[in-house]
Amino acid sequence: MSIVARIMGLENFRVVLVRPIYSGNIGAICRAMKNMGISDLALVAPKQALNLDEARTMACHADDVLNRRREFSTVAEAVADCGLVAGTSAREGLYRSHCRTPREWAPRLLEAAHSSRVALLFGPEDSGLTNEDLAVCTQIIRIPSSPEYLSINLAQAVMICCYELFLASGNAVPPAEFSPEACSAMREKMFELWREALMSIGFMKGDKADHMMLGLRRILSRGQLSEKDVRIMVGIARQVMWAGGQINAGAIEEGGPEHEG
Amino acid sequence: MSIVARIMGLENFRVVLVRPIYSGNIGAICRAMKNMGISDLALVAPKQALNLDEARTMACHADDVLNRRREFSTVAEAVADCGLVAGTSAREGLYRSHCRTPREWAPRLLEAAHSSRVALLFGPEDSGLTNEDLAVCTQIIRIPSSPEYLSINLAQAVMICCYELFLASGNAVPPAEFSPEACSAMREKMFELWREALMSIGFMKGDKADHMMLGLRRILSRGQLSEKDVRIMVGIARQVMWAGGQINAGAIEEGGPEHEG
Repeated sequence: MSIVARIMGLENFRVVLVRPIYSGNIGAICRAMKNMGISDLALVAPKQALNLDEARTMACHADDVLNRRREFSTVAEAVADCGLVAGTSAREGLYRSHCRTPREWAPRLLEAAHSSRVALLFGPEDSGLTNEDLAVCTQIIRIPSSPEYLSINLAQAVMICCYELFLASGNAVPPAEFSPEACSAMREKMFELWREALMSIGFMKGDKADHMMLGLRRILSRGQLSEKDVRIMVGIARQVMWAGGQINAGAIEEGGPEHEG
Repeated sequence: MSIVARIMGLENFRVVLVRPIYSGNIGAICRAMKNMGISDLALVAPKQALNLDEARTMACHADDVLNRRREFSTVAEAVADCGLVAGTSAREGLYRSHCRTPREWAPRLLEAAHSSRVALLFGPEDSGLTNEDLAVCTQIIRIPSSPEYLSINLAQAVMICCYELFLASGNAVPPAEFSPEACSAMREKMFELWREALMSIGFMKGDKADHMMLGLRRILSRGQLSEKDVRIMVGIARQVMWAGGQINAGAIEEGGPEHEG
């Protein structure tokens, strides 16, 4: 069994599934947890015996999280060693009035996880946490969703909470930037080459060149232009210039095809 | 078939599943989309015939999204009418260097969706989008995940993207606050009553009362205290005072039980 690596700040989080029904969901939850660097799973009084095959299929490469799960018979036992206990609820009403979104609670939960274990409670697929379950909670989480369809699949709800904690923990590695944004001097050299190139093939003449270059500048500057991008565009300009030189050497024809101004 | 209500700013988003394999995932995606106010689903060349029963089970009350799905044979056809086309990829490498997270792209995607349709492309469960698929994309999305297990379940990936768009669209309704935070005057009245109550039952005497009240103030002020909370605490104080009055009237005993100072 591979050991789940500790992700800084997330080691102390425990996902507690209260009376879960579907083994597939439990597996999917293991995967979502591992995707987001959380590895401690507790099941409280599952409504059915766990179908391990079904759970493993959905857990994919998170079978280590699945294998390390623990079962408890009551919520109180599952969270006994936890400081902050956050329960999720999609419903409004008694005991649910002070809920916040996962994004709003994330900093508070991470702060608590510095010094003690923190439990995230999720209710059964068909009915959610009861008032009795919520009474043990110190915080209530509500995931924002459309009024057209409030009820989120259990595994999706776990994913959103773990995802928000993972992002708030600062462990998300920003995508590597392979090529930095080109600097102005590099861009200007590119535009100078394109000016020459477009003149060499007769796309524009001297008096209109500056004006027409504004269009090309706008097109190429609207998004980000990396150094790699500039090198590609410079390469094209040089090849166009070469083609223009060939034509001019042979003096094949004046003018060239019609084009939009 | 119920009509999916239009959520402001999200009507123009289309989820495009490229060569999806599992019908259960497709159903789960319908539910995630409807949870987050997105309703336009396109399938490109599904790898298996759709198992409608399986899809419907996972779609739950999002069968309207499922029923309105459209099938295309190529990515180009599925996104032909879309302005911005955002593809998701978990891998780094060629054509993938300028990816951003769903949270980073959300404002740009919502801006584009004001004036044209916007496609979100997701690749097959086993391999993701190919370079050919990504060539059609104008933006690349990478969902942050743990280096221990980067690959996110397809339905979970769709959920995270739709969730970020829903939040960024400003359509998330903040949980109703049933009781506003108590104002200082209300809190002070409550502490005055507790002071009296605790003296009446002999928990503290005049000379130490102010100091001991600081402890209670700290405990009750650390979290938020709503007007409703204050009314509950005032009710308890009054009852304690009543009990203290009973004891004092009967002069049953001096002192009372030991307690921590």
